[in-house]
Parts: sequence; C-alpha cells; structure tokens
Amino acid sequence: MSNPIPTPTAPAPDILRCAYMEIVVTDLAASREFYVDILGLVVTEEDENAIYLRSFEEFIHHNLVLRKGPIAAVAAFSFRVRSNADVDAAQKYYEELGCKVERRKEGFVKGIGDSLRVEDPLGFPYEFFFETTHVERLAWAYDLQTPGALVRLDHFNQVTPDVPRAVAYVEDLGFKVTEDISDSDGVVYAAWVRRKDTVHDTAMTGGDGPRMHHVAFSTHEKHNIIAICDKLGALRKSDHIERGPGRHGVSNAFYLYLRDPDGHRVEIYTQDYYTGDPDNPRVSWDVHDNQRRDWWGNAVVPSWYTEASLVLDLEGNPQPVIERADPSELAQTIGADGFSYTRKDDKEHGFKLGHQL
Amino acid sequence: MSNPIPTPTAPAPDILRCAYMEIVVTDLAASREFYVDILGLVVTEEDENAIYLRSFEEFIHHNLVLRKGPIAAVAAFSFRVRSNADVDAAQKYYEELGCKVERRKEGFVKGIGDSLRVEDPLGFPYEFFFETTHVERLAWAYDLQTPGALVRLDHFNQVTPDVPRAVAYVEDLGFKVTEDISDSDGVVYAAWVRRKDTVHDTAMTGGDGPRMHHVAFSTHEKHNIIAICDKLGALRKSDHIERGPGRHGVSNAFYLYLRDPDGHRVEIYTQDYYTGDPDNPRVSWDVHDNQRRDWWGNAVVPSWYTEASLVLDLEGNPQPVIERADPSELAQTIGADGFSYTRKDDKEHGFKLGHQL
Amino acid sequence: MSNPIPTPTAPAPDILRCAYMEIVVTDLAASREFYVDILGLVVTEEDENAIYLRSFEEFIHHNLVLRKGPIAAVAAFSFRVRSNADVDAAQKYYEELGCKVERRKEGFVKGIGDSLRVEDPLGFPYEFFFETTHVERLAWAYDLQTPGALVRLDHFNQVTPDVPRAVAYVEDLGFKVTEDISDSDGVVYAAWVRRKDTVHDTAMTGGDGPRMHHVAFSTHEKHNIIAICDKLGALRKSDHIERGPGRHGVSNAFYLYLRDPDGHRVEIYTQDYYTGDPDNPRVSWDVHDNQRRDWWGNAVVPSWYTEASLVLDLEGNPQPVIERADPSELAQTIGADGFSYTRKDDKEHGFKLGHQL
Amino acid sequence: MSNPIPTPTAPAPDILRCAYMEIVVTDLAASREFYVDILGLVVTEEDENAIYLRSFEEFIHHNLVLRKGPIAAVAAFSFRVRSNADVDAAQKYYEELGCKVERRKEGFVKGIGDSLRVEDPLGFPYEFFFETTHVERLAWAYDLQTPGALVRLDHFNQVTPDVPRAVAYVEDLGFKVTEDISDSDGVVYAAWVRRKDTVHDTAMTGGDGPRMHHVAFSTHEKHNIIAICDKLGALRKSDHIERGPGRHGVSNAFYLYLRDPDGHRVEIYTQDYYTGDPDNPRVSWDVHDNQRRDWWGNAVVPSWYTEASLVLDLEGNPQPVIERADPSELAQTIGADGFSYTRKDDKEHGFKLGHQL
Repeated sequence: MSNPIPTPTAPAPDILRCAYMEIVVTDLAASREFYVDILGLVVTEEDENAIYLRSFEEFIHHNLVLRKGPIAAVAAFSFRVRSNADVDAAQKYYEELGCKVERRKEGFVKGIGDSLRVEDPLGFPYEFFFETTHVERLAWAYDLQTPGALVRLDHFNQVTPDVPRAVAYVEDLGFKVTEDISDSDGVVYAAWVRRKDTVHDTAMTGGDGPRMHHVAFSTHEKHNIIAICDKLGALRKSDHIERGPGRHGVSNAFYLYLRDPDGHRVEIYTQDYYTGDPDNPRVSWDVHDNQRRDWWGNAVVPSWYTEASLVLDLEGNPQPVIERADPSELAQTIGADGFSYTRKDDKEHGFKLGHQL
Repeated sequence: MSNPIPTPTAPAPDILRCAYMEIVVTDLAASREFYVDILGLVVTEEDENAIYLRSFEEFIHHNLVLRKGPIAAVAAFSFRVRSNADVDAAQKYYEELGCKVERRKEGFVKGIGDSLRVEDPLGFPYEFFFETTHVERLAWAYDLQTPGALVRLDHFNQVTPDVPRAVAYVEDLGFKVTEDISDSDGVVYAAWVRRKDTVHDTAMTGGDGPRMHHVAFSTHEKHNIIAICDKLGALRKSDHIERGPGRHGVSNAFYLYLRDPDGHRVEIYTQDYYTGDPDNPRVSWDVHDNQRRDWWGNAVVPSWYTEASLVLDLEGNPQPVIERADPSELAQTIGADGFSYTRKDDKEHGFKLGHQL
Repeated sequence: MSNPIPTPTAPAPDILRCAYMEIVVTDLAASREFYVDILGLVVTEEDENAIYLRSFEEFIHHNLVLRKGPIAAVAAFSFRVRSNADVDAAQKYYEELGCKVERRKEGFVKGIGDSLRVEDPLGFPYEFFFETTHVERLAWAYDLQTPGALVRLDHFNQVTPDVPRAVAYVEDLGFKVTEDISDSDGVVYAAWVRRKDTVHDTAMTGGDGPRMHHVAFSTHEKHNIIAICDKLGALRKSDHIERGPGRHGVSNAFYLYLRDPDGHRVEIYTQDYYTGDPDNPRVSWDVHDNQRRDWWGNAVVPSWYTEASLVLDLEGNPQPVIERADPSELAQTIGADGFSYTRKDDKEHGFKLGHQL
Repeated sequence: MSNPIPTPTAPAPDILRCAYMEIVVTDLAASREFYVDILGLVVTEEDENAIYLRSFEEFIHHNLVLRKGPIAAVAAFSFRVRSNADVDAAQKYYEELGCKVERRKEGFVKGIGDSLRVEDPLGFPYEFFFETTHVERLAWAYDLQTPGALVRLDHFNQVTPDVPRAVAYVEDLGFKVTEDISDSDGVVYAAWVRRKDTVHDTAMTGGDGPRMHHVAFSTHEKHNIIAICDKLGALRKSDHIERGPGRHGVSNAFYLYLRDPDGHRVEIYTQDYYTGDPDNPRVSWDVHDNQRRDWWGNAVVPSWYTEASLVLDLEGNPQPVIERADPSELAQTIGADGFSYTRKDDKEHGFKLGHQL
C-alpha cells in the first residue's frame, strides 16, 4: 500500500449499515420502468426529478434515490449511523482527514434529516445520517410482492485502485473485513467489509476508480432471483442480465447482476451468513481459484471486471478515475495469461464458456 | 429433406415413453462416483461390469445402465411400449424398413425382458420392450433423497444431420412434434418430439450424427438443480458443469448440463408443460432469437453445439458420423456471422458473455 | 358394491383429461375477486353472467367457468376427448346406459364447440368435448405471473356414496385406478383415477353424494402454494384456508385446500408422479394410517370430510344427495372411536392437533 | 408488573447473540438419532455422556449440547459476549443482583473456555462466555448438507409467568424488544427480544415458569423445512411434528415445531427481518388476532401453549415452576371463551381446525 490514509484521532462514527444509494439517471421514466415496474421496488415518494424507492422489509424512507441528471453517476453512498451525535462524529472525523464535507440539517434528499456528505480520501461521496422518516415496513404485504420481491438493501461495492489502502481506511472507520481475494505475491484484488451482521455493507474491488461497481438488494430465496430473470425474458429485456445467476464463492450467496438503463450495475443477492462475532473467521480466496467468483466455475464476463459507474463530487461533477497499478483480476484469470484452477495442480475439463475468451 | 425414409405399411408400435439409456463408460468406478455418489441415482443392481440405476419415482428396473467398455458410447436408446405385442409390431416395422434388428426374449440387460434392438434408419440403436422387473417406487423415501434428487428420466436428445428427415421418421413412429428451431429459409435446426405428455421423449438436434447429445433427468424444483451445482462446487468438481443452470426458451424448463467422466452429457431438467392433447400448439423458435436456447439470453458454450457421444451398432462398434450439410446453429448465432437478437430490429446491450466469442 | 352399473357394449370415448369445471356462484363479483384478484387465474373472457378463466399453461379456452346463479353448485365436470368422434361415442355410451343426455353442436359455454352433457349413473353432470377455441399459452408470460401462479388444472374430486360402484363405472369409461384408501374389512373410502399421466383426473371420495369435493389447480413449486397462503394472510382473508398446506400421503403431492366465497373447495396442488404405464403400481393406503391424507400426520379438519358442493342436473336443479351406507372415513379415524397410527402397533406422541377433537 | 427486578449499577455485559443451549436428555442414543440422523446437525465432538452439535454456518464449537441425565431439562441458555471482560462484567452484574453464580475458567462444557453460569432472577440458568474453539464453518460444504440443512442457531424461547417483569430484566441486560402480543387490558402475553440483528435471540412467553419453550435453528429456505417434515413422514416419525409448518405473524418467519424424544421443543425457522437499527419499529399484536401466531389463521395446538421443558439450577436440580397469574393466551383465544378474529368485527368462515376444540 502506498500513500496510506492517516488514522484520525477523532473517534469514528458508529455506523449501523449501508442505508441507501443516490444515483443519477439520464432518463427517469426508463429507470422507473426498470426499478419499479420490473424489479418491483416500492415507491415511497416521487416527483418529476426524483424517485424514492425502498425494499419490502425497510422502514426508513428509502434505499435508493433515482435523480434525473445529465450524466449517469453515483451521488451518494449513504450509511446510517446510530445517532445524530454520530453525524457530528463523522464530521469531525472527515474534517481531521482534510476532506471536503457538507452538513445539511434538513438533509440532502427527501425523507432524510441531518446529514453529512463528504468527498472521502478515496474520492467517494459518502453520506452519514440518523434522522429519517419512518415508513410502513411491508414485510407482511404479500399481496403487493412480486415473484422477485426485493426485501432488503444488502450492500454497496466500490471500485478503487489500491485495495489495501482502501481497506485500512474503512477499518479505521469501524468496518471489519470478512473475505478477500489475493494471490501468493500478496496482491489483494478485492475485500469485503461489514458493519451489520452480514458478509458486507460495502466491498472494495480493485480497479480504476473511484467508481461504483454495484448496489445489491436481497431476496428471500433463490427462486425469487430466477423469477427476475424469467420476467426479463418475458419482457424481451434479457439483455439487462450481465452475469449469473450463480452461486458466489465469496459470501456463499446466490447472485445475479443486472445493468440498469444507464448501465448502473445492480446485484440481486440472497443467503450469505452471520458475521457478527468479533473473531468471525476471515475467508481468503486465491485469485486463481476458479470457484472464488462463481462457485460453479462459470466464467465472469469481462465487462463485469472493467465497467463501473462514475461517482460525483459534492458539486455534482464526476470524480476523475485513477488507473489501478496492481495487476487486474481479469488479466490474472482469463485469457492467454490466465492460469486458474478448480483443483490445484489438476487439469480442467476444457469446455466451459470463458475458455474461449 | 433428401433421401426420405419410407413409411412402413406395418403399424408402428405403441410407445409409452423413453425408458432408459444404456451407455458404455470407460471407468466404471469413476462413473459410479458421478452418477451415484454425486447425482444420487438409486442403484437397483450392480456387478463388476454394469450398474443399473433408477430415479426416485421410477418403478421399472432402471433408467440408466452404465456398462464398462473400451470406448465411451451409447449402446441403446430404450423406449417402453404398451405390451409385448408392440415389441412384435416394432420388429415387423423395422424389418419392413430393412433395418438390422435383434430380438432377445430374455432381454439385453438385467431387469428387462423380451426386447427388440434395431439399428434404425438414422443409425441409432433403438430398443423397444414392455417386460420389466418392478422395483420399489421411492417417491416417498424422503429419508434417502439428497438435495438434488433426480425423480424421473425425462428425455433423450439425438444429434442427426438432417432434422426434417429424422422428424418425418419419428412422426411415422408415432411421435408428435411439440417445438422446433428454424429460420426464414426453412432450415430446421432442432425439433422436440414426444410420446408421454411432456415436451419430449427425445429431440432431434441438427449436427454431425448419429450421436447422442444428452440424456435428461428431472428434479421436482429449481433449487434441486442449484443444489447439484453447489455440491459439485463443494467437491471441487465444478468443471463437470458445461452449461447453465438456466431457463430454456424451448420447453420453458429450468436446466443444467453436466458432462460425466467420459464426456457423456447429462441434463438436469424441471418444469416443462402438458402436451397431451392432439392439437397441442407447436411452438416454433427463430434460430436468431437469443432467448430460444436460454430464456435469459445467456450464451451457449460452443462445445454444447459441437460435442456429443458416439452411438454403437448392434455389434458394439461405433457408427460412423455423417457431417451435417445444412447450416449449423452455432455458426448462425455466434461469432462474426451471427446476427441474433433479443428484440427484433433493436440493438443489444453488448456485455453478455458470448459477445466476446 | 350393490347395484352395479352395467358396462355398455358401445366403446367408451377416448378421454384425454379433465378440462374444465363449470360452477355456479351466487355473487359473481366476490368470486371474481377470489379467483382472479387473489388466485390470479387468467380471464379469457367475461360478461355480466359468467367469467371464463384459465391457468397459465393452458391453451384451450378455459379451465373454469364461474356462472352467476341462485344456488352455489356445480353445473359440469368437463372432460376433453380426442376428437369429435369421441363425443359421438360418449353419446352412444351414455344413451346405452339410459342416462339423460344433451348434445349441443355450438357448445354449452363460450369457447367450447360440439359437446355432450349427461346426467351420469352416479348423478354427476359430466361433459365431453373436443372443439375449443385456442388461446395463448401464457407459460412464458412471467411478467404476468404472481408468486402463487396456477399453471394447470390438475383434477376433480367427486363425493359419492359407494366408491367401488363408482370406480367400476369410471374404469369402464377408461380410467385407471392409481391409489386408494381402504380397510381390512374391504371397505373402500376413496380412489384416485386417471386418464392423463398423473395420479388423477378425478377421484371418488366416499360420502353423501353426488357432490363435488374439490377442483384442483397445479403450481410449479411448493413455495407458490405458500405464497397463496401468505397473500390471503396479507389480505386478512386467511379464513379461506380450510386445510393445509401439507404433503399428501396419497399422490405424494404438496397441497392446500381453500374455500371460495360460496364454499366451493379448491385445491392447490404440486408434484405428484408419472403414472402413464399400463402396469403402473397401484398404491393402497390403510384408512387408519395417519399419514395417508397428510404425510406429516397433521389432522384433517372435519369439514373437509363432511362438506361439499351440490351438483346440478341438466335442467339446472340440484341433484338429491344420497347418504353413504358404508362407514365414514371421519368416524373411522378421528374421535373416540378412531384408532389411527403412525407406526403400526406403536404408541403416538399425543400432542397433535386433532387428538383433542 | 409486580416485584420488579432492580437495575444493577454495574454495566451489563455486551452480549453478541444466543450461542448454544445445553439440554439434558434421558436417552442419548435416541437424541442422537433425532438431532444427527434426522435433523442433520453436525457432530463437532461426542463421548458417552455428551454430544456437541453445530449448524452448518457456525464456527464456534457448538450450538447444542446433549448431555445424558436422569431428568429431561435445560442446563444452560448460553450467550456469547464480546470479550472475556464481558464475562467479568456479567459476573459483577449478577452478583449485584444477588444471584447465585459460578465462574469456570476452563468452561462448563467442551469447546468453551472461561464462562459464567448464573441462576438468574427469573430462575433460568444463563451462561456467558467469549472463549471458544473455532471449528470449520461448513457453509460451503454442500456435499454434506441434507435437504433440511440447519444453518444457524436462531433463538431461544423461555416461559415465565410475568412477561413485563422478564422484559424489563432483559432490557436492562441490553436486549431490545422487537415484537409483542398483548391485549386491550394491557396484559402482555409474550415478547421477543434481540441482541443480534434478527427478531430475537430469546423470547419471553407467558406461562408457568421458569421453563424452556423451544430452541430454534434456521434453514435457508422454506423448502428445507418442508423437507424435514417429509423425511419424518418417510421414517414414520411424523408424530415428532407438533405444530406447523406455517408462517408466523410475529417475526414473519416460516416455522415448524418438533418435539424431540424427551419432549424438548425445537423450532425450525427461516426468513425474519433485519432489526439492527436503534429505532427499529416495535410490532405489537392483539392477542385476539387469529393471524398473530399463524399468519394463515391455522390453530395452535394446546400442548404448544401448555407444555415446556424444566430448567435446572446450578446444582442440576429442576427449578420449581411458578404458576402464571395473568390470563393465559390459550384461554383467551381458543375454546368457549375465546373471541378471536381474522378481520375485526367481521365473522369467520367457521371450518378451521381449532374451531372444534
């Protein structure tokens, strides 16, 4: 790790969980169709410029804000903290880091009160808040739920060039690493970090950044994810499916990656495991293990490694993207130079899609 | 269609359903591990040369015979007929066609009585029988069933160069076409034909043949198929997974394709639809429709189109393979010359794996 | 069996399957809410007097007709036959039996052509037809399907006093018995009979009759049935649930029994087994086996045994109900005189609901 | 609430989660068959006197200890705390309460280090520990998992006469109430309290106590729970099923209640919701709401209300059971005096099992 981010003397805010993402979309009607009509997220509130969406088990105002704008990007990765005092703590913390911060008592978006937004040391727009309008938790509203009902916001995933540097920063902020991908040279390709008792609230994926890799929603069961694929097929919109469905090695969750009309990546996710103990064992995966990203050894589409969304600074301008210096996971594992395995030191059946890439 | 197969004057036998496949495997222990330890098929009987396996809802002696031999191949596609008289009828039928036939009152394999084997006009070793030892139907034996329990033999799939010629032949034999893939030039790439009330008992897939494309077993639900993938991952044998899991366009079933230790392809399949009415609507798919083979538009691995198992003649020698003259589905839909679509006359999101092939 | 029904010399019609039921409902709007808004059946056509509904995988005009009328009852149990010639055959068959018949070339309901309705020897209004309007098979219409999507009409269930007499009659008509419940005295309490390759197209349940016990629709998976229960809960209509969900012993299917606004019983059903071979083994259950009706030994609510819908004659008047003379299954298995078992000659854990009845 | 338990001045220990239960069983072999052969819990270690079992996603030594003894009872409700310092804190906390405590640096059972056991003010044997042997987390071991795989210990449930008194005590200990059942007179019938981010780590159920109502394990999906029922049926042990499967109103989880060979109640549970925010909305249910205990309005078997396991003091003697003075939920909702509803002020369909009780 080069250029480490200093650990502030100010205490870190007590972060509860990833709470919502604000994304800028270029065609609000197209995005509404995708997130509401197809994915079935619940509209808490909407106007001509923004739509506030939540999952079925949520009681805070929203888990996703779609805001109309000229450039598809992410305006905020928003975390809920334990109290307003933790918003104050976050402010002191980031001020000590010399970051640009903005505090708004009335919040940056509807339904959220006193909030702090920062341009963090990695270039991401992080938000911290406690105050929110409570809305109806629709967990029992089975009359409203579709076959692919999204029940929780599960996590964010961020692309950043230097994963160890990013991990050290979020560890200072109180996150715990649960899993990672690395190689025998000590290169870290990705790491998963959590506050709530799941595998992650966010992940740091090595690549050109700062960019947003994906935002993930949970379903109850695997068939709910399959139902989303089936519905996309029925609507002749299966080209929204980028990767999956499949079983992750990392996290052990069943997954699907979609791309929204602007190309923002959305994961649908279910069934990871409890991680809430302080000595929760960290799971490390070898970058050459074919089952790390897909437990069934199915190939990862190159776009999944290379494409991601821009993120905005506090003025709403896209952050410049810095190239990753470390080796890329794509180059390490696919193509002429790749040397991945299912069983170490054993040969592969050679017919998998991806062997042709 | 060139060189049509004449329609015999003798009546066709009354075929009930595809009943079992006899395959030759080169390493019986390796095959036993795959079919019994991993897939959980039930061993009805076994000796040093052969293993007789059945699915959990079966009451006839077996649905699959693994026979040890020097060359991996298929020895028989076996259909159950309504009565012994239908075995007689089959004999007359194929004798009129001038096919080589062999009748054995004691059967060719354990558990099966009076049987006819033929080298059919397409070069496939078909068998017809009614007599069989009844064994316990283990439908209720939930104590024995694994998470990926296989409950029925569903269908065979055969590779043959001239699909319309093959279809005309099996229609004479009493099969009904339920679905097909063709193009606007009238080229037929594949057709599905049935006797029982499902989408198929066998299918004719265009390609160099005669070869066996796959044998398919059913599970009750989709999660059972996912469980098979998960187990293969846990055993570090995920390279047995060739394609899927996914949702078929054709048949509407949820599917997975595996390759056994000899490369024989096995499909795991669930949830097609009732087809038993004489006016059951035939579903025709355009070869350029990206959702025909996978409803989610996920790419088909090239090996799935090109690789298949040899079939044996009645002396146990592999049948020579004749090249397909018509265009290949692979060439039509993948790569430089492919021009497939999700929505006709609309552009694709370009990130799908397979676009790189 | 007393008073056996003679076997006609005329050949029986070739019945394909149970095809639709016509029921009379007293409040069409209430029934529409139940069958369309809650259960999600597809409306093929409707007017102020009738609603024509089908399941998602159906291509004939309908599987259920709701007709407005003064008395809740069943107007027709309708079977599809192979051809119009089979409608003729049915007419001759029932005329020979001396039954009242009515033939209408234009059909009795919309979407169905040349049909025969009869008052059969057991007092049931049976219909036979081949001609029907083809409608879109919505198997692939995942955008329209709810979490509890009903995909097929599976079977009827009829209440009749003398089960062996009824079975002999339907066997003459070409049905095959797949399972039954009886006792060591030779009393038969119920029998399941099939034409298509499933456990049944109809069943004969011993009781005061002729009455209609239930009509059953299939889902793909068990979670679809649970979703129906969850939705009824969300709508505060859980009192439509009469029994289940549970696993049947008989048929091995997962089941749920609902009561519609008029009290007509509807079963939701999934995952029985293939029965299409002529030597399909018959499964006989002891009436005292606690797991015969519910594989988990959960109690059967008394109303399930005693309540059923009236059936109409060809003039639309309710058929008189004749009392069962044989012992009732309810009396045999529940209450002071019941002596059921989970393990023969072993004692029960005594805490099950139903032990208190 | 009478006789409130004083709030200690000593700080409460930081409890992570319910971690394991130690139960005394009278026939170790019979219990092993139930928990290992049938339910598929993983044996971490065993000897002639005790078996240590864990769920598939666990990394601490065990979630359940079966110890052979003369009287079926519960020896410990064990909670994991954040550190050894929290074991010290627990000791001071309970000493200030005047409770009998016992500290063992080497632990009370295998695999657990420095521990405190107490006879708490309600009479329950609570344990607190941090140190434990890490064992392999078998989350990815799909080759070992059965169709009904238990993946986590979810919660305990305790029977105690005075629910508000018990709740005040555990709130002092740091638990948060998530849901409750009460009536318009202010009687509280049950309350659910949590430390980890789920609906509960334990619950207080009103009744004669102290007794143990149940211990609950989680599965991933609903079909896993159904598979347990199906397996019990296949083994002719369905009389282990006491109640369910069903959907809870409280917690929204899908459930099943079993009774082990000694009558200890085990719940199998899946899919409640995230509760980790400090302002997580509390859900209160009316005791007369038919859907509170079962969302489908299915009746609760009386034994479920009245039967529970004895708990032991630190000498291993059963604690005396004190009668509940407040009204019982059973009396309020079932039978002659019951007046429950599905829709307030509306009549019920009267056919549900339970209406006959």
